[in-house]
Formats: sequence, structure tokens, C-alpha cells
Amino acid sequence: MNDADTHDARSARPLVDLAAAVRRGERRALARAITRIESLRHDHQAEAEAMLERLLPHAGSAIRLGISGAPGAGKSTFIEELGLRLTAAGKRVAVLAVDPSSRRSGGSILGDKTRMARLGREPLAFIRPSPAGETLGGVARRTREAGLLCEAAGFDVVVIETVGVGQSETAVAEMVDSFLLLLSPGGGDELQGIKRGIVELADLIVVNKADGALRSAAMLAARDYANAVRFLRPATAAWTPRVLTCSALEGEGLDEVWQGVLDHRAALEADGLLQRRRERQARSWLWSEVQAALAHALRSDDGSRRLMRELEDATAAGRLLPTRAAERLLATFRRA
Amino acid sequence: MNDADTHDARSARPLVDLAAAVRRGERRALARAITRIESLRHDHQAEAEAMLERLLPHAGSAIRLGISGAPGAGKSTFIEELGLRLTAAGKRVAVLAVDPSSRRSGGSILGDKTRMARLGREPLAFIRPSPAGETLGGVARRTREAGLLCEAAGFDVVVIETVGVGQSETAVAEMVDSFLLLLSPGGGDELQGIKRGIVELADLIVVNKADGALRSAAMLAARDYANAVRFLRPATAAWTPRVLTCSALEGEGLDEVWQGVLDHRAALEADGLLQRRRERQARSWLWSEVQAALAHALRSDDGSRRLMRELEDATAAGRLLPTRAAERLLATFRRA
Repeated sequence: MNDADTHDARSARPLVDLAAAVRRGERRALARAITRIESLRHDHQAEAEAMLERLLPHAGSAIRLGISGAPGAGKSTFIEELGLRLTAAGKRVAVLAVDPSSRRSGGSILGDKTRMARLGREPLAFIRPSPAGETLGGVARRTREAGLLCEAAGFDVVVIETVGVGQSETAVAEMVDSFLLLLSPGGGDELQGIKRGIVELADLIVVNKADGALRSAAMLAARDYANAVRFLRPATAAWTPRVLTCSALEGEGLDEVWQGVLDHRAALEADGLLQRRRERQARSWLWSEVQAALAHALRSDDGSRRLMRELEDATAAGRLLPTRAAERLLATFRRA
Repeated sequence: MNDADTHDARSARPLVDLAAAVRRGERRALARAITRIESLRHDHQAEAEAMLERLLPHAGSAIRLGISGAPGAGKSTFIEELGLRLTAAGKRVAVLAVDPSSRRSGGSILGDKTRMARLGREPLAFIRPSPAGETLGGVARRTREAGLLCEAAGFDVVVIETVGVGQSETAVAEMVDSFLLLLSPGGGDELQGIKRGIVELADLIVVNKADGALRSAAMLAARDYANAVRFLRPATAAWTPRVLTCSALEGEGLDEVWQGVLDHRAALEADGLLQRRRERQARSWLWSEVQAALAHALRSDDGSRRLMRELEDATAAGRLLPTRAAERLLATFRRA
């Protein structure tokens, strides 16, 4: 990876050229383009959107894979080993992260440049740390857009990593085709570190560290999870979440994990569900953008910012009907 | 129950009087007020909002209980038996339903007036069928508002029933304090009729029909579910979902179920979570109202309706960036 040019965002290089360089798959250009979409400067954002629109028709063909797991489950090793296998097979792999807490926590996720150092040196790989951002919405939007840039740059697989303890998993599930949950052996107690609802999102559950003294514990845990997953089976089952074991450390079971990703994708494609899933995601992204843009517009002057806070508080306190508050917010926006 | 005056919505009786009659707990007035908020006429809606605002300060003290279950789990019998126990103890109980499909399916849920006939004859009970509506959003909004009316009318418990096979459960979970999932014995296969994600919402899982030949099967199923629930435990556990058995038919185990509801509520209150949960629900309701009002405004003339559909389709097809589509939608709204 290379984002030494993080602070070079004001470069005069025209964005048309930048978009073309991204299309050619130049990693430096990709890093620079992502930096541009992460910029908070208003003129940068307008330019970045124009660039994204130019590249959008070239996105869409990658496998979008979300990977989540509790701290200590071995996500870095797992992603690196999986990534190295894919690059060895000639696939281009991008790894992005969503972690709105990384700034405060000191960057637990991809923040350390030494993480995935071997994968980072692979010419076919691109690794991008979590964008700085105050709100999950902002971080999620930028990660989603960065993913589109990676696809336009010709990456075959876009991995979106999330730390597995917060709200970001739902956001990630809304931007990927398959969601993989990585766990370490430890039976039911293991899942206490995983927020309720995340297991629900998983298309694949992988118990890592199935090696050495932990091998049999991993097998037991996988059996328990497989049992639990039965209870969560979807009504119309195009896919029953698959439970697997692996040892990222010893490189065992990773081919089976990747086969699971491919099988899940094939199941979705067979039913036309992949297309529908992506369409639904795009629609829901549209409406969350509408909400974000509206809230932003309402925050842009002191008067309406104060009003918005008052209306939110009055609604939360049960003093004002949400329907009425919504009308007043929209009326304010219309006048502004 | 009494909603013979369903078609009397154009009554000249001033809404101030109607609100006062609701406050006195008159069931006919409550039925009429709910009919008014369900009206699609624009002038009715404005009046209904004014009435709701007047009553809002008197809402908030009821126990809001969501009950869901697959068809055949015995929801009617269960709710009726639970309701009769509560009214026998002097509690006032309202039962509302969310079921956006009821119109098409011919009204599987509360549509039949003979359902819960005994509870319906109780002076302390109020039963309201599912409102007619084309979209879940519309039905959910009206049910939520009807719940507030019931609270203002002094009902101690507001039960919101949902059929357990669709998307409505998430909407219901967003308007109640506790969510109860009713199942019949039958082990893992039983849950195949339940959509993935609904088990996740449950604060209480109750296996019904623990009587006669099914008693031991119910016990086994409950044990299985209790095992599965361990895997879904929340990270900060103010409450571990409780799994119980009962026989609504023989009236067994219902006191324990109600105790479970009270215990869940106590756990939420001890941590200040009830207040926070309701505040979060109100905020999220506010923003869904904003979105609905905006979409409605954008649909109100042919030009912007066409534009909105175009933008949604272009976004879904990956031809247009959602950010850009959102900007254009808002600009249209501002000009309109």
C-alpha cells in the first residue's frame, strides 16, 4: 500500500486524469482518490463526487466480502492469509476497514502499518486503514465509496473489515455480498464479546485457531454454533449459514472458507438474489444520504441547528409527536 | 370492543371533546379517535395530529408488549388468556395488531371479530384489528399512534400483535418495551417458519402448547431454544432472553410469562435503559417520519414523482451515485 500522498490532496492533477489512473489500476492513484473522497473540504467533495460518477460504471464486478470478529479472534492473520492465497492465485485484493472508534481507541483496526505487512507488500493487494470520522454514517459512506473506487480499479475481491463489537457491522452488511464472522474457540462464552445481532448477519461463521491445543475446542465450538445456526434459518432458505473451522496461523482450512464465500455467492446468483440485494442496498444508501444531507443542511446555520436539537429532544422526551416534528423540520429546510 | 362507528369519522363532534372522552377512558371514543388517525383524508390527518398532541402528555406509563409468533402457534388463545388474567387483576388491557398483509390475505390477524371474543367482552379490555394500509410504514405509524391513544385513555398494558412471518416485527420491536416470541413445540424445525432475525428481537421466548401429548416436546424445545439463546447473548447483559413454556389452552404457565415481562421491565428500569430505549425509538420514529414526509412531498406532483422514480432506479442500477441522487431529490423538494 501507499498513501504517503495523504497530504497531497490539493494536488493540481486534474481529477479526470486521476480517474483514468484509477481505472488503469495504479495503486498510488487509488490511494490518492480515496484520500480525496475522505476530504472534508467542500470543493474536494464536489470534485470527488464527479470522479466517483465517472468511475461508477466500472464498479460492480468484485466480490464484496465483509469480515467481522471480536478482538483477539485473529482477524489480521486471517485476512492476510486469505489475501495471500488469493493474490497467489492471481486475484487482486483490496482490504478496507470500517471502525468509527479507531480514532479514539488509538486505531485498533488497520491503524498499525505493520499489520498485514506481508499482504501489503504484494503487488496485487491494496490495504487502506479506517478513515477518520466522527460518525459511523460518515465513515460508512466513505468506506462504501472507497470500495467502489477499488472495484473501478479492477480489484477482484474487496474485503471490508470491521471490529465486531459495535454498530458498524450492520452498516458493513449493507455494503457487502457476503458477511463472514470470525470467532476463536471457546464455546458459548466466546460470543459474549460479540454484540447480539451480529451472529444474525453472518453468511459464514468461521472458528479460527483450530490448531495445537485448541483444535478440539474449535471443533466443539463449531458444532455448537452449527446447532445454534439451525435456529436462525431464514424462511426461504437460499442459503443456510455455513460453519467452518480454520487455522489462519497454520494456513489450514482457508481454501474451504473461500469456497464457502464462492458457494454463497453462487447461491445468491442462482436465485437472482445478488442483484436484488445490491439494488436494495443502493436504495437504502440513497435514503440514508437523503437523511444525512437534510440533517447537514439543517445544521448549517445556528437557528435551524438549534431548532433541530429542540425538536429531537422534545420528541425523545415525549412532548412532541414525531409526525409534527418532522413537518416542522421539513418546513425549516424548505425556507432555508 | 366497539368500532361500529368506523364510518362515522366525519362526525361533527369536536376533537377537543373527543380527546377529553379518550382521557376519561371511554372505549367508544377511543375507537373513534383511532378511526380518525387511520383516515387518509388530509383534513382528518391534521385534526388527528392536533388531537394526538393534546393527548401525548398523558401517554407513556403503560407496559408496551410486542407479541409475535408463527401462524398456528396459538397467538389468539395466548393473548386472550393472558389478557383475561390481567383484566381479572384489575388491569386495563389494549390489544392492537400490525399486519400489513392482512388486507391481501383476507385478514389472518385480528380480522375475525370472533377471535378473542371473551376478552373482547371484558369491560377492561379493548381490541382493535389491524389497520388497513398499503405500506408497512403507514400501518406501523398508525399502530404506534393508536398505542399512544390507548395509553392516554389509561390502559395499563398495550399489547401489539404481529404475525411473525414478515418484516413487521422489527417495526413492532421499535415501538414496544418488551418483545415476546410465541412458538409451538417442534424443535428446530418449528423456527423454519420464523424469519431469521425475529428470534434476535425476543426478550422472552415462550413455547406454547405444553399440554397433553405435546408437553414433553415443549420442554425439549424450550431447552433447545435456551441453548440457542446463549449464543445470542448481548455484550452488556442487562437481560438474557428468558425461555418459558406454557399452555394457553389449559391456562398453565401464564403467570410465569407475565412475571417474565415484569422482570424484563424491572431490569430495563434498573439500568435506566427503558428511558433510553424509548428516547431512541422516538428519535428513530422522527427520522422515519421525515423520510416519509419528504417522499410524500416528492410524490405530490407528476414531475417530481417521475424524477424520484428515475433517481431511485438509476441508483439501484448502479448508474448514479446515491450521494448525487440525494442532492437532486432535496433540490427538487426545496424548489417545489
